[in-house]
Amino acid sequence: DTKLKIFSLNSNYPLAQEIAEQMGVELGKSSVKHFSDGEVQISIEESIRGCDVFIVQSTSAPVNEHLMELLIMIDAVKRASARTINVVMPYYGYARQDRKAKAREPITAKLVANLLETAGANRVIVLDLHAPQIQGFFDILIDHLQAVPILSTYFKSKNLNPDEVVVVSPDHGGVTRARKMAERLKAPIAIIDKRRPKPNVAEVMNIVGNIEGKTCILIDDIIDTAGTITIGANALIEAGAKEVYACCSHPVLSGPAIDRIENSVIKELVVTNTIQLTEEKMSPKVKQLSVANLMAEAISRVYENKSVSTLFD
Amino acid sequence: DTKLKIFSLNSNYPLAQEIAEQMGVELGKSSVKHFSDGEVQISIEESIRGCDVFIVQSTSAPVNEHLMELLIMIDAVKRASARTINVVMPYYGYARQDRKAKAREPITAKLVANLLETAGANRVIVLDLHAPQIQGFFDILIDHLQAVPILSTYFKSKNLNPDEVVVVSPDHGGVTRARKMAERLKAPIAIIDKRRPKPNVAEVMNIVGNIEGKTCILIDDIIDTAGTITIGANALIEAGAKEVYACCSHPVLSGPAIDRIENSVIKELVVTNTIQLTEEKMSPKVKQLSVANLMAEAISRVYENKSVSTLFD
Ligand SMILES: Nc1ncnc2c1ncn2[C@@H]1O[C@H](COP(=O)(O)O)[C@@H](O)[C@H]1O
Ligand SMILES: Nc1ncnc2c1ncn2[C@@H]1O[C@H](COP(=O)(O)O)[C@@H](O)[C@H]1O
Repeated sequence: DTKLKIFSLNSNYPLAQEIAEQMGVELGKSSVKHFSDGEVQISIEESIRGCDVFIVQSTSAPVNEHLMELLIMIDAVKRASARTINVVMPYYGYARQDRKAKAREPITAKLVANLLETAGANRVIVLDLHAPQIQGFFDILIDHLQAVPILSTYFKSKNLNPDEVVVVSPDHGGVTRARKMAERLKAPIAIIDKRRPKPNVAEVMNIVGNIEGKTCILIDDIIDTAGTITIGANALIEAGAKEVYACCSHPVLSGPAIDRIENSVIKELVVTNTIQLTEEKMSPKVKQLSVANLMAEAISRVYENKSVSTLFD
Repeated sequence: DTKLKIFSLNSNYPLAQEIAEQMGVELGKSSVKHFSDGEVQISIEESIRGCDVFIVQSTSAPVNEHLMELLIMIDAVKRASARTINVVMPYYGYARQDRKAKAREPITAKLVANLLETAGANRVIVLDLHAPQIQGFFDILIDHLQAVPILSTYFKSKNLNPDEVVVVSPDHGGVTRARKMAERLKAPIAIIDKRRPKPNVAEVMNIVGNIEGKTCILIDDIIDTAGTITIGANALIEAGAKEVYACCSHPVLSGPAIDRIENSVIKELVVTNTIQLTEEKMSPKVKQLSVANLMAEAISRVYENKSVSTLFD
């Protein structure tokens, strides 16, 4: 009788299901329903006494709903005498509110870390946090996975001419990520350098690096409204790029995102399934790769008390 | 320059506005908006450094949205160097999940208390908690207000014949509340005693107390789907009551509630404004009384470091 239990909440059941299949286990029996007034009603339908419990939940939209489901589930699991409570958050919502950029702003990414600890989480497994510093917001153990290997493998499989590929960061914040992919593809990098010459004057895009006649792969962690990425892709084509692919770990794709991508010069947008794509976010231009294998391996290693960081060696 | 600041979030702006008016202050300038992906974006538009801040928010439906707004606001207020953070929750959501009734259930009312403390609340002002024990879920100060005086005053103003009035508790859990109202109305009490003779056999309603030919006032803390209260009202009429009024502190009124009340023998349902009634929850049968005066007085007393409990002497 295994002591490992994996439960899925409502944000990304297909991913949780795939993780469980990879590991050769069944998902734990539980349900998240709502009382008539909308309050979350959790029920765990099997004993978890003494077990190492893994709860799979992305705090994607509707973020407050998904976060509260998670906190209430952690409380229920704790009171059901689990041995350890491990939260698997393929997508960590509120990660962009990670600092006080203006006076009197909250730091919601830190609040969320505190809430998870208060509810009773013992360990958190995340993937591509918007800022790696968010790891330091936790006093409990945190494992930080990366999608770059998965995205890189996909682009390698396309057999693009390595002499023609350039990995492009859409801003200065993303250069480390772009470099990681570039190393795997043995390609150079370029950076889109946005500057506003004066207030209320349109931004100017300068491209640092040689992209003329090249196949560009734009990489970001989150694509939300897709403004940055589609404007960046245009700038690359205008500067003489041959073609532009884009990729990211977390396809938030809110508001005008899908329209913008479909009407853009982007040839293909490659994303992962940390966030489940609803019908209206699907597009022939969007290719979704699975992180189930990676998450399953991380869960196994945590369960067996092996190193997770060596996953990337 | 006052050091008292009252902010409203999105659950019950009219009540917060009324409280501020009673106190002769303006509501603090702030807004709760959403980013494109639905994440809460709080902005506090005036300095609150060194201030005693009161945040008015009921965790009514959509409860998870309203609770997260509140937690994020507390975080923002804390980081803006407020002196104290006082949370005014006219309605405390998740209060019915206050114990493990079955195996592996969460105790969400306790979780919420912990989340408020973790976010940084210093004090909480609530009204008619579903169970008074929830006060003990907090390690911070909590003031527990009651709507019974407000509801009683209204029924007194109706000039019902005092010899004909009986205050009725719809179940054994509500007897203390019924007795408090009965004392104020100088009326006797009765109790509806529900019993299920065997599993899968319909409940039998026995009425403990004399209600024949009487004007009954049913009182509860929360009316949610209105099942209990309308069935109780029927039982009273069938047992010979002359007429039935109903009242409660918190008009949750979810699902079939309004239909049930309109089609019931209940003459009038008297509620308070701890929960804002949306258009579809309004009915000619529903009379809403304001708790603004009471809340304003409690806030003043907390601010001036005076006793809140003597409010009920
Ligand atoms: N959900 C969100 N959608 C859009 N912008 C956000 C969101 N959350 C936070 N922000 C803002 O994005 C900025 C951080 O983004 P970045 O500069 O990419 O790290 C901060 O100024 C935040 O106010
Ligand atoms: N929002 C809700 N709506 C209906 N029932 C609930 C709600 N929250 C908790 N409960 C259930 O109501 C019961 C407690 O109600 P009570 O017996 O009136 O204190 C518990 O068994 C809970 O499972």
